[in-house]
Amino acid sequence: MSFQTVLIRGTGLLGASIGLGLRAAGKAVWLSDPSGTAMRIAEDIGAGSPWPADEHPDLVVVAAPPEATAEEVHLALVQHPEAIVVDIASVKGSILEELHQIQEGLDLSRYVGTHPMAGRERSGPVAARGALFTSMPWVICPHETAEASAVAEAEELARLLGASLHRMGPAEHDESVALISHLPQVAASLVASRLQDAPGNALELSGNGLRDVTRIAASDPNLWVQILTHNASAVLEILYGLSEDVSRLIGTLESPRAPGGQADIAQLIAEGNAGVARIPGKHGTPPQAFTVVTVIVDDRPGQIAAVLNDVAEAGVNVEDMRMDHSAGHQVGMVELSVLPGRAEELAQALTHIGWKVVLT
Amino acid sequence: MSFQTVLIRGTGLLGASIGLGLRAAGKAVWLSDPSGTAMRIAEDIGAGSPWPADEHPDLVVVAAPPEATAEEVHLALVQHPEAIVVDIASVKGSILEELHQIQEGLDLSRYVGTHPMAGRERSGPVAARGALFTSMPWVICPHETAEASAVAEAEELARLLGASLHRMGPAEHDESVALISHLPQVAASLVASRLQDAPGNALELSGNGLRDVTRIAASDPNLWVQILTHNASAVLEILYGLSEDVSRLIGTLESPRAPGGQADIAQLIAEGNAGVARIPGKHGTPPQAFTVVTVIVDDRPGQIAAVLNDVAEAGVNVEDMRMDHSAGHQVGMVELSVLPGRAEELAQALTHIGWKVVLT
Repeated sequence: MSFQTVLIRGTGLLGASIGLGLRAAGKAVWLSDPSGTAMRIAEDIGAGSPWPADEHPDLVVVAAPPEATAEEVHLALVQHPEAIVVDIASVKGSILEELHQIQEGLDLSRYVGTHPMAGRERSGPVAARGALFTSMPWVICPHETAEASAVAEAEELARLLGASLHRMGPAEHDESVALISHLPQVAASLVASRLQDAPGNALELSGNGLRDVTRIAASDPNLWVQILTHNASAVLEILYGLSEDVSRLIGTLESPRAPGGQADIAQLIAEGNAGVARIPGKHGTPPQAFTVVTVIVDDRPGQIAAVLNDVAEAGVNVEDMRMDHSAGHQVGMVELSVLPGRAEELAQALTHIGWKVVLT
Repeated sequence: MSFQTVLIRGTGLLGASIGLGLRAAGKAVWLSDPSGTAMRIAEDIGAGSPWPADEHPDLVVVAAPPEATAEEVHLALVQHPEAIVVDIASVKGSILEELHQIQEGLDLSRYVGTHPMAGRERSGPVAARGALFTSMPWVICPHETAEASAVAEAEELARLLGASLHRMGPAEHDESVALISHLPQVAASLVASRLQDAPGNALELSGNGLRDVTRIAASDPNLWVQILTHNASAVLEILYGLSEDVSRLIGTLESPRAPGGQADIAQLIAEGNAGVARIPGKHGTPPQAFTVVTVIVDDRPGQIAAVLNDVAEAGVNVEDMRMDHSAGHQVGMVELSVLPGRAEELAQALTHIGWKVVLT
């Protein structure tokens, strides 16, 4: 029998979005937050109703910032002796450690750590949406003494919100996110921070490469301080390697004509080729499984729609799409990724209709 | 009177694309390449005809790899004593240095270095297209002794191909591209190279953040060895700073509870916020000038076209577009960037028609 009543402690972007999604799934949702404003916004957008302090929920979702999570989980376990307690902080090992520090020998059988990987670039309940987790990974990270029934409820929560379920131990989770989430964030911030004092002339040459690499550098500093410090050891392991790689590249560039120097650089770029090829694409397929068909369009309302309409007429599914643009121009390129077997027929169909098409 | 006959030395992606574009603009184009295969492909796709060695062009475009560029420019200046000679290598200072090394006191008045910033991620004449340079930046980098008439011809070349013209000295150019092109490439390769031995479970959690940061890591190793070694001093300046920043972050994470530690991390992320905000968006506007309207769609042919059709009906121009997807799911999110003043009306119009819309 799955949970029917839920208390969400913390009504920021993620807490409020969970509330919206669970209410849409027919669950009773109570909210609590130390900030009266955040609470009222979450209530206003329909994420749930204020928690009547005498009520005991079946499930408590702790959606507090990472630094407050352990304390909140502990409180929830004590206040609701029958409830399953789940947290959603983006680090897992340090939360467990803190729980053991708060109370030695604490019974954690009703607690399960989880991590929904969504919505990190915006914040606050105003940005909340019930579909935030749709098709996004949600990692369930049971510790050694977690009850099977508690794990099942945590999985039910993720499933109800439409997420894609993954299961890992807390240490495996922390090492994984250090690599695929925390390292890219650090790299993006490091690159973007060097643009602060760049001359405007240089920035005018910015292309999609720079835009892509730095996009997530717009993230929230306060959240990332907590994430990085709470996952310090896993992040450090990776940064030691990164630092060595940077030093080696510096050494090579300081004497680029030295024997093996050029081979070292070629190897770095080739290793990057190999690494990026391992990132799964949509539907788990590798990114190079798609062929790009580029269409040149005028930059006015309806042009992109018109292209995609004609693509749909041709019966070809667009797997991914990008717009390639440059400052100051009124012409754009729409890059359509399609299955390789469909690219040529699509290019022909679009050319026939009169589009300027490039198949690469 | 602008040039009428052009010799393109080097028929890779860029050389062949320039040939296609110039022929479309009504110019006579001759081609030469040390590789007979590359030559024949370029000829087959219509980029020009083989160079009859007794003919003298008005303009020579050297489209050789960076390491062969200086030699080719020198040859062209000697072989064609009346022609303007332009190169398109993505580094400029080192080419000039090499030219002075090849022949002391060489008259370089007819030579102008340029850099079209396009098409670096693919290679070979098969990928060529005349519209490759449309609306992309093309930097004209006259050295001190370049004749005004030579600079005018270089600009005419870029203009004919539809590029957006920029003018900088060679040193300013090299420092600019080190920052906005070479640093992002190095960062993407460094991050991607660490994925080589990552467990598959970790990679399954990959999101758009990782995909964005590593996309350009798929670039050609041989080309990048040449670019980085030819621009070593400007790239080194930046890498010294990057290396210091990484060391400082490591120091902070090694003792995250030390005084000021958390503030250091927050500052790095905040500086990244400030840097990324300076990158011009489409039409030179800052990226945050747009509001994102997110539409949830099924992943089948025609859905995205249908959305954009309805957007066009609403009379709203889409300034940028992204698809948000995760491995293994059949539902996607289309993020439409529109002018802030149009976002709410668009969201209402789409909701009214029946789309699931989120305004963030």
